[in-house]
Amino acid sequence: MRIKDIGGEFALIERIRKKTKLYSKDVVAGIGDDAAVLSYDKNNYLLFTTDALIENAHFSLKYSTPEQIGMKAIEQNVSDIAAMGGLPKFAVISLSLPKNINVKFVDGLYDGINKKAKKYKISIVGGNITHSKEIVVNVALLGFVEKNYLALRSRAKIGDLIFCSGNVGKSTAGLELLRHNKKGNSIKYHLEPQSRLDLARKLVKIGINSMTDVSDGVASEIRHICEESKVGVIIYADKIPISKNTIDDSKKIGKNALDFALYGGEDFELVFTAPKNKVKQLKKYDASVIGETVNKKYGMKLVKNNKEYNLGSGFDHFGRKRV
Amino acid sequence: MRIKDIGGEFALIERIRKKTKLYSKDVVAGIGDDAAVLSYDKNNYLLFTTDALIENAHFSLKYSTPEQIGMKAIEQNVSDIAAMGGLPKFAVISLSLPKNINVKFVDGLYDGINKKAKKYKISIVGGNITHSKEIVVNVALLGFVEKNYLALRSRAKIGDLIFCSGNVGKSTAGLELLRHNKKGNSIKYHLEPQSRLDLARKLVKIGINSMTDVSDGVASEIRHICEESKVGVIIYADKIPISKNTIDDSKKIGKNALDFALYGGEDFELVFTAPKNKVKQLKKYDASVIGETVNKKYGMKLVKNNKEYNLGSGFDHFGRKRV
Repeated sequence: MRIKDIGGEFALIERIRKKTKLYSKDVVAGIGDDAAVLSYDKNNYLLFTTDALIENAHFSLKYSTPEQIGMKAIEQNVSDIAAMGGLPKFAVISLSLPKNINVKFVDGLYDGINKKAKKYKISIVGGNITHSKEIVVNVALLGFVEKNYLALRSRAKIGDLIFCSGNVGKSTAGLELLRHNKKGNSIKYHLEPQSRLDLARKLVKIGINSMTDVSDGVASEIRHICEESKVGVIIYADKIPISKNTIDDSKKIGKNALDFALYGGEDFELVFTAPKNKVKQLKKYDASVIGETVNKKYGMKLVKNNKEYNLGSGFDHFGRKRV
Repeated sequence: MRIKDIGGEFALIERIRKKTKLYSKDVVAGIGDDAAVLSYDKNNYLLFTTDALIENAHFSLKYSTPEQIGMKAIEQNVSDIAAMGGLPKFAVISLSLPKNINVKFVDGLYDGINKKAKKYKISIVGGNITHSKEIVVNVALLGFVEKNYLALRSRAKIGDLIFCSGNVGKSTAGLELLRHNKKGNSIKYHLEPQSRLDLARKLVKIGINSMTDVSDGVASEIRHICEESKVGVIIYADKIPISKNTIDDSKKIGKNALDFALYGGEDFELVFTAPKNKVKQLKKYDASVIGETVNKKYGMKLVKNNKEYNLGSGFDHFGRKRV
């Protein structure tokens, strides 16, 4: 039985979650959010997350410089800490490199890592190096969040509005341009994605109900919130923030930007829910209302051209084409 | 310039360490030990480490069951926490799997992970799954150590005795038997290595000066202690604990067990130094005196058959043959 036969990565993670046990009362939230939440002190939680960049799955040396790979390895983990409402602090880096790799690659990679470490004041405190056929850059990141600012996927309430920050679909549009040997502004969003740490901190201070980051496409992230919060959802396709630039770049390769937004990945924007009475405050920030949470029995729906569709399962690493 | 041209993995790590900066006063010890040491509370430090198992570098599906791979992934990280004198507590698992891998593999892998998590009371609190050509199992592990029990590589004093726990060379002897299609008791030490967490905790309670685990061969680990502590060393080849079984298994493939002990890897025993007045107490435990620390200017020496040799640099992941 292959992973796709049991329902892909989502089903596999659920299967793993059922098998694992917790041995500590200090686990506030374990598998199933962007980062684990652990007891720390009276006012703060410790956040713990890990994410890998794999050559030919998440990046290609044909397209990315070593520095860009290093930057992305940090950004994607910072994005997970941001999605919890926290601030990153300590990282360890696990590198696997082909035996004959040039030292210049490692220098460039660490230039990228260090650039982002400086930006976010993350101390790189350890790691290890081994070898492999393809390059693997695995980052484990610790962060902290004040208890009252913690944002979970599981706290959406029925009747919440659903927001999406910035604009989405841009990273996948950029990747597709590269694959098709075309030019366009979207490429920079694939090669140098930016997490929304500053925005996330502002949002948790206003008071939102739930949040996650857009690492795997908006549809997939909304599914996470729905499953963890046990709610349903209606999303309006025409409300999903997609830039004119992303639409134009998608057209160059005969693709629909909405598909990239819903089922692409690595935009590192934020999807979050908040009660309606917060709309006025939230409107000041770079985020769009894209739908509303409803009763779970209603399911997860996408309204497009006045028709209602089931919201697909979104990006799945096991369904994804290699770059 | 290749990594071997600058002096291998050791030189690369030193190069990385020089490039990275710390942005927090909470880093008690960063790159250069078995785990990072971070502030926690009045009495305890937080320990943070990461280590990967890569298919065809650290294991082969020809030899290992999925369960054994899962167990080893946890043991090698527990060994790092043990080497700091601490206890493991929370882990996140980053998995990269070939697209068509069988779900049975993941089930077996997690059976192994969960078996060891139960043994050590480690809560698996998160992770991620993506795909790659070769299997990668990356574990990041958090642990805790009481401040007065912290064991660093950097605290060896001139005149300390150097100890090695258990016996060494067994894992590499086992791997070589497998490669040569021979049988022998050593194989189990390669497939199911055991960290020395219980022993490490007893040692730090007695009061040792420095410690590290034997992940890369005794010579390499002693070099770590010497470099971090700025001391030299004399090691006596005939004092290095090697079992008759390891010697016999090494002979089967025409190899010298001492080479496996010094330059092999993955024994997950402990190398530590202690002042001479602790010998009586330490002799109760499963550890042998193998040498003595001396002034740094004396270098790192190995005495064998009454002749003195320079102690080689030990196992280097970039010099290692793939399984």
